[in-house]
Amino acid sequence: MSSQFLPFLSWARHYDRSSFTNDLIAATVVTIMLIPQGMAYAMLAGLPPQAGLYGAMLPLLLYAAFGTSRALAVGPVAVVALMTAAAAGTVADIGAPGYHLAALWLALLSGAMLLAMGLFRMGFIASFLSHPVISGFITAAGILIAASQLRHLLGTDVSGKTLPQVIPSLVASIGSVSLVTLALSAAVLGFLFWSRAGLAKLLQGLGVSAPLARLLGKTALLLAVVVSTLATWALGLDRMGVAILGDIPRGLPEFGLPAFDLSLIQILAAPALMIAIVGYVESISIAQTLAAKKRQFVDADKELVALGLANLGAGVSNAMPVTGGLSRSIVNHDAGAETPAAGAMTAAMIAVAVLALTPLMVYLPRATLAAIIIVAVLSLLDFRALPRTFAYSRADGAAMAATMAVTLLVGVEEGLLAGVGLSLVLYLYRTSRPHMAVVGQVPGTEHFRNIERHAVTQDPHVFSIRVDESLYFPNARALEDRIVQALAETPDLHHVVLQANAVNYIDASALESLEAINERLQAAGVSFHLSEVKGPVMDQLARSHFLDQLTGQVFLTQFDAMATLSPEMTRACLTAERRETQRRAPAT
Amino acid sequence: MSSQFLPFLSWARHYDRSSFTNDLIAATVVTIMLIPQGMAYAMLAGLPPQAGLYGAMLPLLLYAAFGTSRALAVGPVAVVALMTAAAAGTVADIGAPGYHLAALWLALLSGAMLLAMGLFRMGFIASFLSHPVISGFITAAGILIAASQLRHLLGTDVSGKTLPQVIPSLVASIGSVSLVTLALSAAVLGFLFWSRAGLAKLLQGLGVSAPLARLLGKTALLLAVVVSTLATWALGLDRMGVAILGDIPRGLPEFGLPAFDLSLIQILAAPALMIAIVGYVESISIAQTLAAKKRQFVDADKELVALGLANLGAGVSNAMPVTGGLSRSIVNHDAGAETPAAGAMTAAMIAVAVLALTPLMVYLPRATLAAIIIVAVLSLLDFRALPRTFAYSRADGAAMAATMAVTLLVGVEEGLLAGVGLSLVLYLYRTSRPHMAVVGQVPGTEHFRNIERHAVTQDPHVFSIRVDESLYFPNARALEDRIVQALAETPDLHHVVLQANAVNYIDASALESLEAINERLQAAGVSFHLSEVKGPVMDQLARSHFLDQLTGQVFLTQFDAMATLSPEMTRACLTAERRETQRRAPAT
Repeated sequence: MSSQFLPFLSWARHYDRSSFTNDLIAATVVTIMLIPQGMAYAMLAGLPPQAGLYGAMLPLLLYAAFGTSRALAVGPVAVVALMTAAAAGTVADIGAPGYHLAALWLALLSGAMLLAMGLFRMGFIASFLSHPVISGFITAAGILIAASQLRHLLGTDVSGKTLPQVIPSLVASIGSVSLVTLALSAAVLGFLFWSRAGLAKLLQGLGVSAPLARLLGKTALLLAVVVSTLATWALGLDRMGVAILGDIPRGLPEFGLPAFDLSLIQILAAPALMIAIVGYVESISIAQTLAAKKRQFVDADKELVALGLANLGAGVSNAMPVTGGLSRSIVNHDAGAETPAAGAMTAAMIAVAVLALTPLMVYLPRATLAAIIIVAVLSLLDFRALPRTFAYSRADGAAMAATMAVTLLVGVEEGLLAGVGLSLVLYLYRTSRPHMAVVGQVPGTEHFRNIERHAVTQDPHVFSIRVDESLYFPNARALEDRIVQALAETPDLHHVVLQANAVNYIDASALESLEAINERLQAAGVSFHLSEVKGPVMDQLARSHFLDQLTGQVFLTQFDAMATLSPEMTRACLTAERRETQRRAPAT
Repeated sequence: MSSQFLPFLSWARHYDRSSFTNDLIAATVVTIMLIPQGMAYAMLAGLPPQAGLYGAMLPLLLYAAFGTSRALAVGPVAVVALMTAAAAGTVADIGAPGYHLAALWLALLSGAMLLAMGLFRMGFIASFLSHPVISGFITAAGILIAASQLRHLLGTDVSGKTLPQVIPSLVASIGSVSLVTLALSAAVLGFLFWSRAGLAKLLQGLGVSAPLARLLGKTALLLAVVVSTLATWALGLDRMGVAILGDIPRGLPEFGLPAFDLSLIQILAAPALMIAIVGYVESISIAQTLAAKKRQFVDADKELVALGLANLGAGVSNAMPVTGGLSRSIVNHDAGAETPAAGAMTAAMIAVAVLALTPLMVYLPRATLAAIIIVAVLSLLDFRALPRTFAYSRADGAAMAATMAVTLLVGVEEGLLAGVGLSLVLYLYRTSRPHMAVVGQVPGTEHFRNIERHAVTQDPHVFSIRVDESLYFPNARALEDRIVQALAETPDLHHVVLQANAVNYIDASALESLEAINERLQAAGVSFHLSEVKGPVMDQLARSHFLDQLTGQVFLTQFDAMATLSPEMTRACLTAERRETQRRAPAT
């Protein structure tokens, strides 16, 4: 088997001690982040904490073998965890036996879809998700994620999946806040915020070298976990209202296909597709950004395959849907990861943690995990994107605003669908009005230009129009309408010339439109001509009967067309002097 | 009020005796067709016969006042009747009180949607329906319509809405065929087929002038109705198994808004939108074809308003959804209709018929109406369109085949949705892979061309790429992928130049891609430049921070770019002789 199918063969043969050392350091730092984050994102998804740890084992091994990014850190991530909760919540309550089953099928289905998209080169499906939509969705998801953690931070019973549900619930439960939990949350949040810059600075002040201090700064999560767990155990905070993680099963996950249920699969197919696409879009964008820094190449189709296999692996190992995560990937890259072997090492260290450390996590406060989630999702929020996008393009801004509003007010799946639907409609709206210019001859030249922008000469018997776009079904009718209008407005019309120099493709709808134009002009005694048709378009037209039916000719250039259809005026105009001041020649 | 809002004012002031005579003749011929067709299409829609006659009254008056086509004959048509039956059948059984209510709400909702599309200039929504999809849908609908009339033609109980339902039902009921009904159906069908050419020829043989003979030939429908009704009455065929129409309420329709039911409206909204769009697309295409023959102009937005009002009129007058019909419009045009007044006259004559003639229709055999439907839908079937479209474009052929298959096998709404969905996916697929060319300098010139098609010179430190399409969200990623790949493949790269002469628009997604490209190239120490950016695109980019962040420059021409980035090689190439044989200059 060549490296074509197993990308790890391309780096494994050059693997040496220095790569190993660098990968090991990176893997250690990532593992320290991943243990608390994995459990936190499992909690966010409504799953038991071990689901997050299992999601950091087999999926990472599979990505290491099949992925093409050298630095991408795969595993549970916040947005996908939220989408998992939204979808699984439609089929079962959190904690019910069907809930984790639904999460596993989401992983399997989205894995199978990603795999299929990679094998059949269908990655273009991800382009349905325009940038404003994904960006608005991620910000709105970040807000919903933060809102969902209020109950853990406050130690009370705030519930709901959308803002109109969460806010009244928050107001109603404000009286039953656990003050001990709140104090613990505040302490952990304060420490984590401070540590983002402060910890590394403190360590540097203590004489640690700058790069090492930056790395050690990433251990803040671990510190928060260890200290808050010890404090809870020592002070008995769990008896004072602080919710703790409790027993986590020790040992490796059980492998096997989850119970098959066709009706469950039908319900989960659409959310699984959304999870697959959102996860892929986020992951490939991180991978490409990191790869460019080292002039490496990430193969989009192979990434689909690798992420697909990683999710299939998650589905058969009692885990949860996974993808490439932003923060851990950056840490992995900055810590010096050279190859995907770093991911495999991470998986091995997580396995050790699951085998040895779970008994120590019993007293880990859920509030600590919630604080870790809050700090992580802050990087997702980009409130300035909306005004920035609006300023650039109102259509794109509207799509982003609609995605955010529907996600926050109605739900995550509805928000994504609204955004995709609206951006398609707005796209077709724009495309349905291609730029068309009526053209005339620039005096003294063989050039033809827009009559509205240049001083040009027109023959009243000839209507020449240039379309600055390919002719597709969304815009086919526009050309028809424009020419029919010209026919009605120009009593002396004898010829219509379509200058097709910007037309790269004519689909069947546009062909029918051209045929209709030809027939309608013929019925009115007007000939229809084409000029400057590109080679591939001519080949395409030759596969239809259009050229046989065409009442006029196909000219190589617009000048040829006019020299044939209006020889005297065209020759006179060619020898005329160019007068820049005049806007239209008084042709009639 | 000006003719801007009431288009009839534009022709009413020039209306004279000759126009009146011509309109009256056309209206008479159309009425003769419309009485049997209206009742037949009402039967097809599962409604009482008078619903079809009422659909030929108020809607025609409203279209006459607001429509811009001089020849379009509005009223019940076959495909819309089938779609009405499909949608109304989901909420009630034929004959149940809720069934006609559903049909009325379909008319009101599609009328309101058309009106809104016209007032807000949203006619582009109709472009979602590509030509292969509408064409495949109409052919499949024609087959389903013919299948639905089998029970009337055979006098037996064939039922079902899709071929997998109709075919077994036909086989099962073959034993209970009413032979008298079958004989009557065969006689009427045979007469109608013969009359399409034969009646006019016969009349000409009898000394009638050719144009009059052609007009009188259109009375075949009336003849079939009169003769078969008389025969049924005289021979007592109704007691021998021939189903008859029975009592039709005499008098004008009752006007008023049908009973309001929000849940009914929610169910019918989607099918009403499909009825609106299919009806509009068919109608506007007929109207434009007929208008072009007389160099008249049809205003698409006003047509939406007029068809919308016509359907609202249908909804408040106990009728059924209406649109412009192909066969009656052609007859109207050929018979000399000069203005929409012909439609108003038709409405008046139908009113007279409803007041005076309904008692005479009691013995009209349903088999006669079914035969009229069969003959009418034959003109809808275009089986050669599928191979023709496939030969032209496999993607368009696939969309057409999918529409036909799903319509025939699953249902009309599902078929339309499948077609629209597949053509959008195929469209995005194509758009997601824009034509991109790596360009080099043609020796001895300032021109830059595709390195794969021309003998050109390239600098190994500069990668120049031209994109032959606007940059939109469906194709934004493609450029990113291509440049990242070039970065990985070209070790000595210093500059990337994007030649943007074919780019008419850059949406927010593509802007983000350009920013990502700029950042990634910067991280790898490569500058990013643009050349030949159009004026409107530069204005647009100036509304973002992209130009501030750009590591390179924006050049007026590709030659300027290369003369700056690679001065020696570019100058040497400019003075070099053009060597056509060589494919690529041995630049390295």
